[in-house]
Amino acid sequence: MRERDLLENIFARNATLPGRITIPPGDDMGAVRINGQDVLVTVDQVIDTIHFNIAHNTMRAIGRKAITRNLSDVAAMAAQPLGAVAAACLPANFSSADADDLVDAMRETGLVYDCPLFGGDVAVGGDRLIITVTVLAHANEYPPVLRRGAQPGDAIYVTGELGGSYERPEDDAHHMAFEPRLSLAQSLVQGFEVHAMIDVSDGLARDVGHICRASEVHGRLREDLLPLRDDARGRAARLGCPAWQCALADGEDYELCFTAPSSTSLPDQLDGVQITRVGECVPTDGGPTVILQTTDGDARGVDHLGWEHHAQ
Amino acid sequence: MRERDLLENIFARNATLPGRITIPPGDDMGAVRINGQDVLVTVDQVIDTIHFNIAHNTMRAIGRKAITRNLSDVAAMAAQPLGAVAAACLPANFSSADADDLVDAMRETGLVYDCPLFGGDVAVGGDRLIITVTVLAHANEYPPVLRRGAQPGDAIYVTGELGGSYERPEDDAHHMAFEPRLSLAQSLVQGFEVHAMIDVSDGLARDVGHICRASEVHGRLREDLLPLRDDARGRAARLGCPAWQCALADGEDYELCFTAPSSTSLPDQLDGVQITRVGECVPTDGGPTVILQTTDGDARGVDHLGWEHHAQ
Repeated sequence: MRERDLLENIFARNATLPGRITIPPGDDMGAVRINGQDVLVTVDQVIDTIHFNIAHNTMRAIGRKAITRNLSDVAAMAAQPLGAVAAACLPANFSSADADDLVDAMRETGLVYDCPLFGGDVAVGGDRLIITVTVLAHANEYPPVLRRGAQPGDAIYVTGELGGSYERPEDDAHHMAFEPRLSLAQSLVQGFEVHAMIDVSDGLARDVGHICRASEVHGRLREDLLPLRDDARGRAARLGCPAWQCALADGEDYELCFTAPSSTSLPDQLDGVQITRVGECVPTDGGPTVILQTTDGDARGVDHLGWEHHAQ
Repeated sequence: MRERDLLENIFARNATLPGRITIPPGDDMGAVRINGQDVLVTVDQVIDTIHFNIAHNTMRAIGRKAITRNLSDVAAMAAQPLGAVAAACLPANFSSADADDLVDAMRETGLVYDCPLFGGDVAVGGDRLIITVTVLAHANEYPPVLRRGAQPGDAIYVTGELGGSYERPEDDAHHMAFEPRLSLAQSLVQGFEVHAMIDVSDGLARDVGHICRASEVHGRLREDLLPLRDDARGRAARLGCPAWQCALADGEDYELCFTAPSSTSLPDQLDGVQITRVGECVPTDGGPTVILQTTDGDARGVDHLGWEHHAQ
């Protein structure tokens, strides 16, 4: 079965949620209200051979990713981290030295992003290393940016570059070394009218599709505008596919995709990070939710693309 | 490596936690403060062949346990659940019908205990089913009950019965069907002076040891007072060991262990649940942290006992 099917099952049945759930399942974070205070929560797991590879990655990089993967969700809400708890399922032969390095990396990464690790659970005897991290966050001055605020006429932007994130397994490849866009997201909501935002983890095509379905708009992307990572070009050459396919479908980009009124004047760079306008939102029509306009004049539906994580 | 070693590593290095972490690692739940509001958090995982067995248990019972295991931690703080998020790692051959049943069971169990499921993550392609649940909670009228409040002279109590929880794998065995003691914990703190509390998941001997080390006291338990589950007697007979060993070391009891001044007059039952005085706290001395006084006049250190979860 596919991840998407199960997630849609989870999201489909929210009729009975109590009123204190102020952001229900279906966004980058959920939220629960307690005494007038909204607490945002996200949970994500990293699994050996799916999200990292214990044969190629150091414990330091694995522990870091276990935290930063969640912080990318916090950035997508333009929220501020409060703290993290973690559950680790360790293989029976996992060494104490590796466990120390892993926990140290998670703890230190948490402190770098003001997201202290303050609780956890460990089980020994799994088949492969799995780390599940839950991060709590809160909105600061600005309310959380949801997926559902995009409007027809909005421009669609992405931060950084796309594609080929997992083309190399090493620690310095983007899928391990990416920078969660926490401070950039703050700068965006402080300076500009951001209507909707998501982090690009499943591939831009699918993640724009998430914004579109939540906002009841359609999306048009332009091939000539897509910012390509070098590893995306390398991967496309290796696979013999067009580079746009890697940019739209590879996933694990951990960049931000957001929409803003087309009249907004966004800089090409903000906080040292490239900002690229890649398309626009349009009213819904009978066609595909997300269309790519290619440089050869074609217009093709692309929201069925996107990366399903599978074990190797 | 043993779970205990890694957990102690995690707990050992908290010097750098910011002030908003009001309950650091080392209790049944951690807590973070936001705008004067303490939010309590616990995370726990259930793993096929360790905490349940997919060959013997229904998805309904597995999904229920994934939630109630965390709610037992909430009860141990005498806190009130706010909501839960879950991460599931599914085997590649997991059926859609099973996934639906699993998620339905988690969602329905959450609603039974006023702990709605409001977010999640799913990965497909693991070797065995693993469900990681994070529960948020808050203190109601009474502050959270920590492990560290026990005093010399306190009596030590347990709720329900102990031992043999996992003697049978079936859904109706205690380790699957237990009732998290949420409302009982509320009755306890409303009616009595509870100094320290923990949920009995590692076995009474080790969990009393947790209270003792956090509180800087020692514990003395009495064999003749231990409330034995029928399955504990059955297991002891099968293994040819004394029944007290099962009561102290089997784990997965999900009962509450708490201390209160010895002058407190606690009823034998509260909210329909048996309450048993099983020992007392004493000043620290040079001996073992927890001692069992056996009916044959022996006094033996027992806090090295306790269940390490291992895969089959």
